Formats: sequence, structure tokens, C-alpha cells
Amino acid sequence: FNFNKLSLEDENDDKSQEGINKASKGGLIYGEYLQLNKILNAQELESEKKGKKIHDEHLFIVTHQAYELWFKQILWEMDSVRVIFQNGHVRDERNMLKVITRMNRISLILKLLVEQFSVLETMTALDFFDFRYHLSPASGFQSLQFRLLENKIGVPQSLRVPYNRRHYRDNFKGQDHELLLQSEQEPTLLQLVEAWLERTPGLDAEEFDFWGQFEENVLKGLEEEFALIQAKAESEEKDDLLSEFQKQRDVLLSLFDEKRHEHLLSKGERRLSYKALKGALMIYFYREEPRFQVPFQLLTSLMDLDVLMTKWRYNHVCLVHRMIGSKAGTGGSSGYHYLRSTVSDRYKVFVDLFNLSTFLVPRHWIPKMNPSIHKFLYTAEYCDSSYFSSDDSD
Amino acid sequence: FNFNKLSLEDENDDKSQEGINKASKGGLIYGEYLQLNKILNAQELESEKKGKKIHDEHLFIVTHQAYELWFKQILWEMDSVRVIFQNGHVRDERNMLKVITRMNRISLILKLLVEQFSVLETMTALDFFDFRYHLSPASGFQSLQFRLLENKIGVPQSLRVPYNRRHYRDNFKGQDHELLLQSEQEPTLLQLVEAWLERTPGLDAEEFDFWGQFEENVLKGLEEEFALIQAKAESEEKDDLLSEFQKQRDVLLSLFDEKRHEHLLSKGERRLSYKALKGALMIYFYREEPRFQVPFQLLTSLMDLDVLMTKWRYNHVCLVHRMIGSKAGTGGSSGYHYLRSTVSDRYKVFVDLFNLSTFLVPRHWIPKMNPSIHKFLYTAEYCDSSYFSSDDSD
Amino acid sequence: FNFNKLSLEDENDDKSQEGINKASKGGLIYGEYLQLNKILNAQELESEKKGKKIHDEHLFIVTHQAYELWFKQILWEMDSVRVIFQNGHVRDERNMLKVITRMNRISLILKLLVEQFSVLETMTALDFFDFRYHLSPASGFQSLQFRLLENKIGVPQSLRVPYNRRHYRDNFKGQDHELLLQSEQEPTLLQLVEAWLERTPGLDAEEFDFWGQFEENVLKGLEEEFALIQAKAESEEKDDLLSEFQKQRDVLLSLFDEKRHEHLLSKGERRLSYKALKGALMIYFYREEPRFQVPFQLLTSLMDLDVLMTKWRYNHVCLVHRMIGSKAGTGGSSGYHYLRSTVSDRYKVFVDLFNLSTFLVPRHWIPKMNPSIHKFLYTAEYCDSSYFSSDDSD
Amino acid sequence: FNFNKLSLEDENDDKSQEGINKASKGGLIYGEYLQLNKILNAQELESEKKGKKIHDEHLFIVTHQAYELWFKQILWEMDSVRVIFQNGHVRDERNMLKVITRMNRISLILKLLVEQFSVLETMTALDFFDFRYHLSPASGFQSLQFRLLENKIGVPQSLRVPYNRRHYRDNFKGQDHELLLQSEQEPTLLQLVEAWLERTPGLDAEEFDFWGQFEENVLKGLEEEFALIQAKAESEEKDDLLSEFQKQRDVLLSLFDEKRHEHLLSKGERRLSYKALKGALMIYFYREEPRFQVPFQLLTSLMDLDVLMTKWRYNHVCLVHRMIGSKAGTGGSSGYHYLRSTVSDRYKVFVDLFNLSTFLVPRHWIPKMNPSIHKFLYTAEYCDSSYFSSDDSD
Repeated sequence: FNFNKLSLEDENDDKSQEGINKASKGGLIYGEYLQLNKILNAQELESEKKGKKIHDEHLFIVTHQAYELWFKQILWEMDSVRVIFQNGHVRDERNMLKVITRMNRISLILKLLVEQFSVLETMTALDFFDFRYHLSPASGFQSLQFRLLENKIGVPQSLRVPYNRRHYRDNFKGQDHELLLQSEQEPTLLQLVEAWLERTPGLDAEEFDFWGQFEENVLKGLEEEFALIQAKAESEEKDDLLSEFQKQRDVLLSLFDEKRHEHLLSKGERRLSYKALKGALMIYFYREEPRFQVPFQLLTSLMDLDVLMTKWRYNHVCLVHRMIGSKAGTGGSSGYHYLRSTVSDRYKVFVDLFNLSTFLVPRHWIPKMNPSIHKFLYTAEYCDSSYFSSDDSD
Repeated sequence: FNFNKLSLEDENDDKSQEGINKASKGGLIYGEYLQLNKILNAQELESEKKGKKIHDEHLFIVTHQAYELWFKQILWEMDSVRVIFQNGHVRDERNMLKVITRMNRISLILKLLVEQFSVLETMTALDFFDFRYHLSPASGFQSLQFRLLENKIGVPQSLRVPYNRRHYRDNFKGQDHELLLQSEQEPTLLQLVEAWLERTPGLDAEEFDFWGQFEENVLKGLEEEFALIQAKAESEEKDDLLSEFQKQRDVLLSLFDEKRHEHLLSKGERRLSYKALKGALMIYFYREEPRFQVPFQLLTSLMDLDVLMTKWRYNHVCLVHRMIGSKAGTGGSSGYHYLRSTVSDRYKVFVDLFNLSTFLVPRHWIPKMNPSIHKFLYTAEYCDSSYFSSDDSD
Repeated sequence: FNFNKLSLEDENDDKSQEGINKASKGGLIYGEYLQLNKILNAQELESEKKGKKIHDEHLFIVTHQAYELWFKQILWEMDSVRVIFQNGHVRDERNMLKVITRMNRISLILKLLVEQFSVLETMTALDFFDFRYHLSPASGFQSLQFRLLENKIGVPQSLRVPYNRRHYRDNFKGQDHELLLQSEQEPTLLQLVEAWLERTPGLDAEEFDFWGQFEENVLKGLEEEFALIQAKAESEEKDDLLSEFQKQRDVLLSLFDEKRHEHLLSKGERRLSYKALKGALMIYFYREEPRFQVPFQLLTSLMDLDVLMTKWRYNHVCLVHRMIGSKAGTGGSSGYHYLRSTVSDRYKVFVDLFNLSTFLVPRHWIPKMNPSIHKFLYTAEYCDSSYFSSDDSD
Repeated sequence: FNFNKLSLEDENDDKSQEGINKASKGGLIYGEYLQLNKILNAQELESEKKGKKIHDEHLFIVTHQAYELWFKQILWEMDSVRVIFQNGHVRDERNMLKVITRMNRISLILKLLVEQFSVLETMTALDFFDFRYHLSPASGFQSLQFRLLENKIGVPQSLRVPYNRRHYRDNFKGQDHELLLQSEQEPTLLQLVEAWLERTPGLDAEEFDFWGQFEENVLKGLEEEFALIQAKAESEEKDDLLSEFQKQRDVLLSLFDEKRHEHLLSKGERRLSYKALKGALMIYFYREEPRFQVPFQLLTSLMDLDVLMTKWRYNHVCLVHRMIGSKAGTGGSSGYHYLRSTVSDRYKVFVDLFNLSTFLVPRHWIPKMNPSIHKFLYTAEYCDSSYFSSDDSD
């Protein structure tokens, strides 16, 4: 039994020295490529400028800069996804891999940013107190990129919590104000996804008529269930079942009430058009069809985005509570209380996708599909010409 | 039962709007404080400059910039800790809280940085291939801050893996080369900790004479154990016990062999002086004494540092394997194989602290201490004058 | 330059085979030690029992079992900490290392449990729907260990959100009901910490008289600040400063109003006795004194505990929203809405420690201490006899 | 501006009490469902049985039990994926969503398990020393589930590091030995993936003939590149380019050398058949085609699996180094050195997928595909009959 014969690892030590030193002949250098002269010379402590350097202010600055760096990356990904949707590129299904890869990347960055609070939490309230008055009136609320991100995802102006009783945008000036206005006017991720959902293949009555068949099945299913309960002998259990059945029936039937949907939309409790909602439910039900596997992953990643944004907010609230108790923030806001009010469903953009789970039904109620007839589910559009050339023009 | 009476939360909605808008009157602004004009304008894609923007290069740049930002923060903390040790400030035990807080902060940052690889891993080898040739000969090896960090912790030049058969420092020029040279000449964290360990109270023979008492107890303990085994009837089990006993005895006795220690030191297999090793073992054994609780936490945080540096390296290796297989790196190194060779115990600076667990003994072998006599363990030095004034001058 | 000479690693391959096979001679076996026959045979799928195995139910069971395993560990640590406090063992300061080590361990476990939701989130609402009706009326609310944990930390019965309009305890029967009752009557961590804070050295008026000196300094400090503002020429800025000064003065003076404290206590908005609050503030201010370094770490770890419990709750809410939308829970609760109402400050036990940051003052307002006189800060109690023997009897 | 009108949150407090108490009428109980009587009564401390309870042994047990619980879940997912492949179910592309969902779940569990070491790391070497001799000769090596997992993924017997110079399987007895033998004979994930890759549509020479076209393009591409370099004036740079070109050419041409592949296979340096390798490369190149998007995700998840297994191993090594230094393990192995030797590429099962990045070429060398002709890429197989019925029989 020759152990060394197996030892692939051993060779590595030699292999580790097999390279050549390209850099010795000049050319691009790591630090210049990354513009480290900018990145690493952007930490100026207010406390030092005011005469007494406070050690922890450096951490405070670096942490916020790291947040902003990553926000820029998130916007970069988000914008590229929006461009793909906006230019109709998703009609070429080949772009869907990019879309979900980038959405997943955003999720991983947000997870990192949630985690990142643990570093700033090593600064105690007492350490922060030593320099926080130097920072006033600067405030995290003024993070332009975070506000842009909210707008681009689709947080509606009408549902935003006011900031010290004023419209959020009034807290920004000049070019920043312009950028915010502009971002409010561009199509949001929510709107783009809505348009994409509305064209889900299979919705049209002339073809598979998902919605018509589904309503029919639900009505039939409810009827059968009711009959089963009615057949039971009178008892407390029967009464309970009956009352629960009625609740569930009301919920399910409400799904087919378009007017009610419009009403909820107007109140901001729903955000997607009725047709888009149908498309989303269709993708849920037929998610295993090859045509819908990646779209289903996209819907999941949109919920991830919402949840992670809200977890970020909540972790931020926890940090602030630790740092300043229930004091006012450096920008004059009510601090903890203001932030806490933003950890709210009103900031959840894709709330409809969460609530779809309210409308799930037994598998055998879902209209069966005959894929040899309904080929649309198995064919994907593409537009070859633009494909290889436009690869990175997004 | 009045639910609303309990509802502390309800008030928050009103409280959320109680602030005032300080920023409206001018003063420091978030973006200026953080110098975001520098931070957010430092992403220039080589691929774009060469005519074809590759989307993922932005991620590549931002990720590396985030690493460098955090490396700067780690160096900031590490330097402040070294200054405290260097200026003899640890003789004032009040500084120990700062020391361990900052060491723990470094650990949390490193944990984040290990985690951070998961973001870059969303870039596939194919995406990287599209722009990697633009980057040559820039290479991650050229990260000045990472090399400085290694030096300041105490990675010795003699144990470094060469880079393409050349000394690591030869890969840096001008000011960077100077900074590296300088960092090699400054006292390393290892050396500072060594000096601090050497003055552990209780080591001196005139006082508690820990070492003398400990050796005595070990000899006596071993003798007793040997007698117990000898008393058993001959059997295979007895033979096994005896052979194991002899192994353990050799290990324990080697601890008292100062010459052997010097020999291992010269080979780089040990790094701490003999006296410092004694101090560390004393802190291990008496870690629950109030005087040693925080020093013990410090030793633990030094091991954390070593382990996290090595985990960072290992995660880096995994990423590189994914990105370029066993190809050469952009700087010409052997890439994967070079990096793999740095995930080695030779880069573990505080390896002695790990190996101390080899020398643990039953609790009753540890010399008992009478704290009413050996007060040194309960009193801490301080130097009041410097304290309040120098607080943040480190 | 001989690379191989340095290669410590190379020897490892041989060293890797140097051991002997102890297990071949019988004795304790891994699987028996861990009772894996119990652990790995406790996954029985309701869906399978009802005739149609649903794959994801296994994940659902294992995840919850992992939660319960870790809850047991948290209770194990929490109980040991409570015993140390309860038996007056903290009078021996040597036990403090154990206390904070175990509190930190609880924090790390809770971080893991927060992270653990990401695994269950891979189950979609649709997968859950396939078996969730089998689970009714079992519900996560019935986790005895989680309720015990809340009680032992110190969530007061009076501030609990009712469960379907009923007292939380009414949802448990038999022995579980008894255990809950009992846990409500045992001293909570909050109460034990309160008693410990009340004996903070330095509080007594006869000795250092921290509180008396502190009030004096605050009054003097406020007066000086007021004078400075008054001296300014009339302007809008002066008015602003004045109004802000008055706000801050009111906050600071409220600290010395014992009656107000009692009132807030009775409303549940404060939880610590007045004297304990003083002790906590003293530890905050003098945290760098050797005597207070570890106590300060303890206060930090108590806030960590609160924050992590609340993050766990919030992540739970997010998961449930994903799984069942705004449907009722399997146990009949209002599900999402019920859980959301528990992510509230009323469940924060150590809320006073957070709010202490409201009462921070400039460093020079803090009464100076002369450690050569006030030795109490530098000496720690111990009781030698009990120490070595009782080590692990907790 | 009416803030309260927007306040969706406010309603929650009432909604939180809208449920009904189903459990009060009997039925399934949380604790019974989870068999907590087994799970929570499986912690028996050896130290307690031997007369002196050591607090930290409880952590040691619970951590290992949590590992084993999750290993069971990983095996559950792994087995279900293997069944899908084995029964030819992947010919129905609808099953691919399940496959990648479950592979991703395994990744998330492994990430959690890597993270989980941080909890055990709160136990110091000294605490472990107090009970570790009670555990001998039990050893983590005896984890049956971990060995099964390795076998099922496809770690080959011939590449395993021996355990104390004996075959790994000899360390298991009775039923465990049988289970290991059996797992070695079942098709591994590697083999199943290999078979699946071999049937990648587009490989066959009669159809798209990917391999033939690709070889042609590579030869042409290399020729052109060579011509470009040759055209340059003689210079050091030209020499460098030439030498690099030759290296790269040798690498690329080796790809078409089937004999070399067979040779590397026999040495264990490659693991996939030549045809499977072609399939994998094809999926890499055409990953954006709808037909290949999910297959590409699968290849990525296989690399994730390999990397996470190896990270788990490495974190384990780090923990052990901390706990026992370079002592022998409780089972008699050489401990640290043995474990370190398993963090090796020989345990990487899908090493070929990593090395594919060695063979990447410029995008325009990749054979263009005309999807209107090569429909195979856009159509997916399905077998309707088995689909709805077999859903969860895997």
C-alpha cells in the first residue's frame, strides 16, 4: 500500500513556484487598477479636525463607505436587470439566466450587508458619544444611493413614512434631488416585472385559458368539499369545519373578484395588476414546467429582495437603539422611532407574491395541461441577431 | 384584559415624526463626510476602456475595493493595539479593555471578509474569462496592505513561500517597497505579545515561582501515574497504558527542556521565547483569577486572528480554483498552487498558543495559589496621569 | 535557497498515519455516545403516515429538531449562569469569566439560529402547502423550551402578547404547564442581574458616592453650558441651541428623579430598580477600570441577548410571511400578525441598558476617581474553599 | 397629510388576536410531532457518569448531534436527487427544478455547518481537556453518516487517506460496515451526473456536432493568433508572447487528446468520462440557451458542494488544532495531521468542473448555433403519466 503514490498534494509545493513574474516588466498595477489612492485616502476624521482624534470614528467611516460601495454594486446589478426588462430583452429567454444570476447576487450582497452590522456593533454607545456631535447634521437618511434603490425597486412615494413630517425628497438638494425625481419617473422593477407577468404564456382565454379553467375547478372543488362536510352528522366538529370552510371559501372566491383587487390596489395593499397576479399564480402552479422553472426562480428572488431589504432595516434599527437609545438622530430625526416605522409592510414592494400563498389549493384542483397541445410552455423566444452582439451592452 | 394599555409600540408611530430637520440649515452632509465623490467614482472598467464593457468587471473591482477598505480598518486597529503594547501602556491594565475590544473587532471584520467571497463566487469562470486578460499583470499578490498586515502580525520573512522563486518584497517598488521594509523592522504583534507575556506576574522564582512548582508537580504526578500502572497485573491493556504513558511523559518533560525549545525556535517551529511560553501557560492555568481573565481573552483572540487569516487564505484558494482552474494567475504566478502553499502552518504566527494544549495536565497537578499571599494577581498597575488625557491619542 | 527545507507541511503526510487504532479494542463508540439511535430515528413524516410522503416535510422536522436541540443548550448555559448568580458565586469574581464565556456562547448559538432560517426558506409556500394541513393543530407556539427561555430571561407575564386572546400559559397542559409556572417563580436573569448591579462597588454614599458626585457634576455642567449659550448674540441659531439644551437638560435631570423612575417601572417601561440603574451607569462610565472590564462585557452581552432574541423573532416573522402569507397558523393563531406583534420592545428585557445611552455626558463631567484611595475598584472578592471544589457543580 | 391613514401596521395589533385556539380541542402536539422526548433526552454526559459533571460536555454532545441531524437531512436530499437521476426521471426535464432546489438546499445546510464550528470554538482546550479522556476511543472518524455522504457523492476508495494505516471501512463493524459497503456499490452522484452529461443534446456528430466544430475552431483560432504574433518585430515582448502562446496551445490541444484523458482518469486526476467532459463544456459555452440554463445551475451547485465539503473539513482541522494542538485524537488517530491530509484535492469529486476553466476560449471561437435548425436545444422531454403521480415518491 503505497501512500505516496496517491499524494497529489505533494506535487503542489513544486508547482507553487512554476509561475513567471509578469509584473516585473511593467503594466497595470493592482493598486492603480483599483484606484486605491482614492479609496484609501477618503477617511478624514471630524474628531481629528476638531482637535481630538477619536479612534472609533475611523470604523464608523469605513463601515459606511463599505455600505455605499456595495449599494453602488447593487444599483449596478439592479439597473442592468431593469434594462433587460425594459428593452424587451426578456422576450429572448436567453437573458433570463443573467436576470436571475444578478438578482441572486443582489441577495448575497444584502446578506453580507445585514451581517456587516455586527462589525459596527463592536463600537459601544460610549465610544460613539465621543464623536457623534461632530457629525451633526449629517445623517444616514441622506444616503442618496439607498433612496434611489428604494425608488428603483418600487417603494411608492405615497407609502413612504415622512421624515420629520416632510416629504423624503425635500431632504435632498441640487443634483441629488434631480436624480431622485428622475428615479421616481423611470419604470420601477415592480412595474417591469408586472408587465413581464402580464405576458405569461397560457393566460389567454383563446389558448390554455388558465384563469377560466382555474375558477371552474375552484368552484367545483369547494362544492365537493362542502358536500363532504354537510354529509357528516351534526357535531361541534362539523360546526368548526363548516365555519373554517366558509372562511377559506371567502378567501378563495375573493381572488376572482377583480373589483376588489382594484380597490385593494388603490389602497396600496396590493401592488400588481390583476393580470400580472394571474401570471404569477400560473408560474407558481406550473413552476416545474421547463418553461417556468427560471421564471419561478425569479419570483423567489424578488421575495428574497424584499425580505433582505426589510432585514437590513431591522438590523439598522437594532444598531441605532444600541448606539443612541431613544435619543434623536444626528440629522435631527426621532432616530430609533423613525427607523422603526420603516420596518413595515408598506415598504415591501412584492407583497403580492407573499400573499399568493393565501390562495393555494390542492394539487388536483390545478387545471391539467397537455403539453403536446400547449406547446407554448415549451418553446422560448429568442432573437439571434442581437444576442451575441448585445451581450454586455446592458 | 386591556390589550391596548400594554401597547408600547403604538406610540411609536407618532414618535417617529417628532424630530426636527437639522440639515435644512446647512452644515456637514453625509456624502461629503464620507467623501463619496472619491469612493463612488473609483470604478473604472478596463474592459470598457478597451472598448467592450464587461458587466461583471464592476463586481470584481468593488469586491476588491471593499477588501482593501476593510484591510485599512484592520491595520488601523492593529496599529493602535501595537502602540498600546509598545508604549508600555499595558502596564496600565486599564488599557486591556481597549486591546481586546479591538482584537475582537479585527476578528469580526475577518469573519465578514471570509463571508465576502460568497459574493464574488457569483461570477462564473466564464464571466471572468471575458475580462481577465485585460488585468494582466496586475495581481492580488500586489496588495500592499495584506503584506503589511502579515508583517505586522509577525509572519517571518524566512518562512514566507517565495513568489515565482523570488523574495516577496521584490515584487513591490518605490514607496511600497519602503513601507514593507519598515514594517519588517517595527516590532511585530508577536514580539510585543512575547514581551508582555514575559512579564506575567507570578513567574519569578522569588515570588510565586510558578515554573518551579509546576515542574515539581509534573514529576510527582507522572511518578504516581507510573506506579498505578505498574501495580496492574500483566496484560495487553497494561502494555498499552504503559506505552501511552511513556509517550505522554516524553511530551510533558520536553516542556522543561529549554535547549530543545531554543532548537525548535531556530527552526521556526516555535515562535515565542521560553519565558513567554511559561507566561502563556500560567495564564492558561489561572485564567479564572480576576487578574488573568482579560489576558486569557487576549490569548484566545490571538488564536482567532491566526485561524481567521488562514480561513481567509483557504477561501481565497477555493475561489481561485473555481475561477481559473489550475491556470497561471494574472500576475504570472502559478495561481492555485501558489496560493495553496500559503495555507500552511508556517503562516500561523501564534502556533505556540495552539500547541500549549499539548501540555495540559490534570487540574490537581496545577500549583495551588494562596491569593491572600500572592496579591500580585489581584492588583493591577495603572498610571493615572496619562490615562484620561491619552485616551485617544493611540 | 532551499524551498524544501522550509516545508513544514511536507512532514504532515507521514505524521497523518502515526496514530494507533484504539477503537479496535472496544470501548465507547461515537454513535452510542451521541445516542444517535434516538436522534436519527425521530423523523416520522405525518404525510407518510397519511399515505403520501411529502419530501420537504423531512426538512421541516429536522430544522425544528435542530432548533430544539440548540434551545436545550441555551437553557443549559442560561441555567448555569443563573445558578452562579443565585448562589452568590459572583461574589467570587473568579466566576465572572465563566459567566461571560457562557453568555457569549448563547449569543453565538442565537446567531446560528438566526442564520438557520435560510435553510427552511428553501422550502416554498407550495411545498409547505402540501403537508401543512397534516400538522394542525400543532404549532410552534407550543415550543415549551422557547417559552421557558423567555421566562428565565425575564419576559414579564404582564407584557406578553396574548395568544388568541388567552393567557400564553393556558396553551400548555400537565407537566409543561407546571414547568412554565415554576419558571415564572424562579428568579429571572433580569432579577439576578439587578441584584448584582445593586452591589456595584462605589455606589455607597459613605465611600466613593458616585451618584452624589455625578448629580453635582451634571448640574454644574448644565449651568456652564447654559451660560455659554446665553452669552451668544440673539439669533435663530441661539434659539435652536437653547431649545435643544432644554430638551437635553430635561432628559438628564429626569435621571435623578427617583419617583419618575418608579412610575416608569410600574408601567413596564423600565425594568431595573433605581439602584441597579445607578450601578449599570457606573460600570458604563468606569468600564476601563480593571475591576469593571468584565462586568462591562457582561452588560454588553445582555444587550446582545436581547437583540438576538428579537432578530430571531423577526426572521421567524419573515419566514412565516413567505410560507403562509397572512393566513392563520397551523395552531389557529392569526399567524403572521400574531408573530409580528411579538417583535416589540415589550419583549426586550434589558431595555434599560439600551436607554442608558440617552444619559451619556461629556467625559469631563464624570467624577474622577483616585484609585489609590478607592481601592474597592481594584480588589475582587473570592472564596477559595468553594472554588476548586465547586468548579463544575453548577 | 394624514399619516394614520397610511398606517397599515396599526391594524396588526388587532389582527394579532383574531385567531382561534385549535389546540384546545386535542390533536397533534408540537412536541410529539417532533419526538422531543427522544431528541431532548439524548444528552448523557460521560463525565457525569464517571462522577464529576463537566459543564462543557453538554455543548460537545449537542453540537455533534446537531451535525448528525443535518447530515441526515443532507443524505435525505442527496438520496432523492440520486433517485431522480437513477430512474431516468431527469429525462423529464420537469424534475430539474427539484434537483437544483435540493442541491442548493444541501449547499445552504453545509454553509450553516461550516458556521456552526464557531459555537464549539467557545469551548477552550482547557475545558475540553477536563472530559476528553472519558470519550476515548470514540472518535469523529466513526461518523457513519459522514462516510456515507462521501461515498454517495463519489469519493473513491482508492484516493482515501488511510486511517492509522488501515482501510477506512475496517473501522466500522456490523450493520455500519454493511451500509458502507453497500454505498460503495450504489451509483454515486458523480457517476449519475456523468451519465447525464453524456446525453447532453448537441454532442452527436450527426446533429450539431459540437466537438467536431469546436476542435476545428480552436485549431483555426490558434493559427490566427500565432500569425498575429509572428507578424510582430523581434523583441523580448514577442518572445514572451510566443512562449505564453505555446503554453496555452499545449493546454488547449490536450483537450482533444482522448488517450491523455484516459491516462489522467486512471491516475485519479480526472473523474469524468471523455464524453461527459464534452457535455459539461457544451453546457458551459451555451449556458444561456433556455435548454441549458438549469443544467448550468446544476454544474455550479456541484462545485459548491465540493467546495463546501472541503471548507467543512478545513474548519474542522482548525477547530481540532485549537482543541488538542498536535496531540493524538480520542480515537487514537494522529488527530490534526490526519485531518489536515484530508483537506486535499483528492477528496474533490467534481474536480473536472473546476479544471474546465483551463479550457475556456474567446467567445467567437465557440461554434455558432442556429436554433431554428437545432431545435433540440429548445425542446425538453417529459413523460406526463409518471409526473403527477410520482411527485413525491422519490
